[in-house]
Amino acid sequence: MTSVRQPQQDRSRQTRRRLLEAAVECLTELGWTRTTVVVVAERAGVSRGAAQHHFPTREDLINAAVNYVSEVQLEELAEQVAALPTDGTRRRAVVEMLLNLYTGPSFRAALHLWVAASTDEPLGAVIKPLERQVGREAHRMAVSLLDVDESVPGVRETVQATLDLARGLGLANLLSDDTARRARIVAQWTSMLEAELGAATMSS
Amino acid sequence: MTSVRQPQQDRSRQTRRRLLEAAVECLTELGWTRTTVVVVAERAGVSRGAAQHHFPTREDLINAAVNYVSEVQLEELAEQVAALPTDGTRRRAVVEMLLNLYTGPSFRAALHLWVAASTDEPLGAVIKPLERQVGREAHRMAVSLLDVDESVPGVRETVQATLDLARGLGLANLLSDDTARRARIVAQWTSMLEAELGAATMSS
Repeated sequence: MTSVRQPQQDRSRQTRRRLLEAAVECLTELGWTRTTVVVVAERAGVSRGAAQHHFPTREDLINAAVNYVSEVQLEELAEQVAALPTDGTRRRAVVEMLLNLYTGPSFRAALHLWVAASTDEPLGAVIKPLERQVGREAHRMAVSLLDVDESVPGVRETVQATLDLARGLGLANLLSDDTARRARIVAQWTSMLEAELGAATMSS
Repeated sequence: MTSVRQPQQDRSRQTRRRLLEAAVECLTELGWTRTTVVVVAERAGVSRGAAQHHFPTREDLINAAVNYVSEVQLEELAEQVAALPTDGTRRRAVVEMLLNLYTGPSFRAALHLWVAASTDEPLGAVIKPLERQVGREAHRMAVSLLDVDESVPGVRETVQATLDLARGLGLANLLSDDTARRARIVAQWTSMLEAELGAATMSS
């Protein structure tokens, strides 16, 4: 029985995924208010009926898309972590990865959702717990990658500041390509972190 | 002649200012798309006709409101600078002021506009030059208040990072009251700046 039903389930899952990806694209490119089921269906190349089968209301679609953004954020994070060098350039690469985090597609989409949620209570109710989850995971990963001991005073706040700075840099990059300026800030931030966190490093 | 016309001009100027203040409030509380001439007129307690006399189109209103936000941002900045202590607590107070900048009403409104502008070209065309102006002024003021020498390598990037961090902290504060966490980051950031900028201080 499964062999007959599987292809259909696969197609359905693919359609759902296409819709969610299109919804995230719409949220990033068109903003929150112009992201409707109709617009997303069109972008995904899915019929309006099929889209409404998956997401009967705009609220269903947005909720699913927000969940999807968080999942993809965590995947993006894990992928970037896996690609880090293991030699002497690792710490600089870690700082670079962290400070560039919010220029990636899913984190960029999350910035839009974040600001939209601040003036939209139902959206806020969905986003806040998810953002906390992604924030906690990013923090946990940053502590582990920077290889520091959070029981040392100031270390926790330094890691937090790094992630808040990443959000600020992501914001700066929304309006114009900020790559060159950001690279200089990454270099400076790396040297400040070395000075600050050197003593808190666990393995050295 | 002026004595007859003056009161009317004053009233007109007051109405215009009330509309602009209401527009900024709407942009912050309702977001960019729900800020229309009708909504703003209602909030300002001004008749629709009077509002349309001042701002015939939504575009006129938004352009004027964006200009107004920038002006008020610069005023907010100047007011906060004037209130800084001159004793030994000055540098901590400067860092605190800078990192809290984007939690103030006009800077908070600017965050909303910033993100809205990234998906709205006409709005972006108005906002980009104004944000550059406010950004330059904030940077110039930060360098002067921190009393550092930008010709020293790394100083410029450290000041930039401080203002980018301020934007990230402003973003964090949009969704929930982040005051307590931010205070700990301010303390840590102050000590890192002391260590980094100590040598670059001009007056000591």
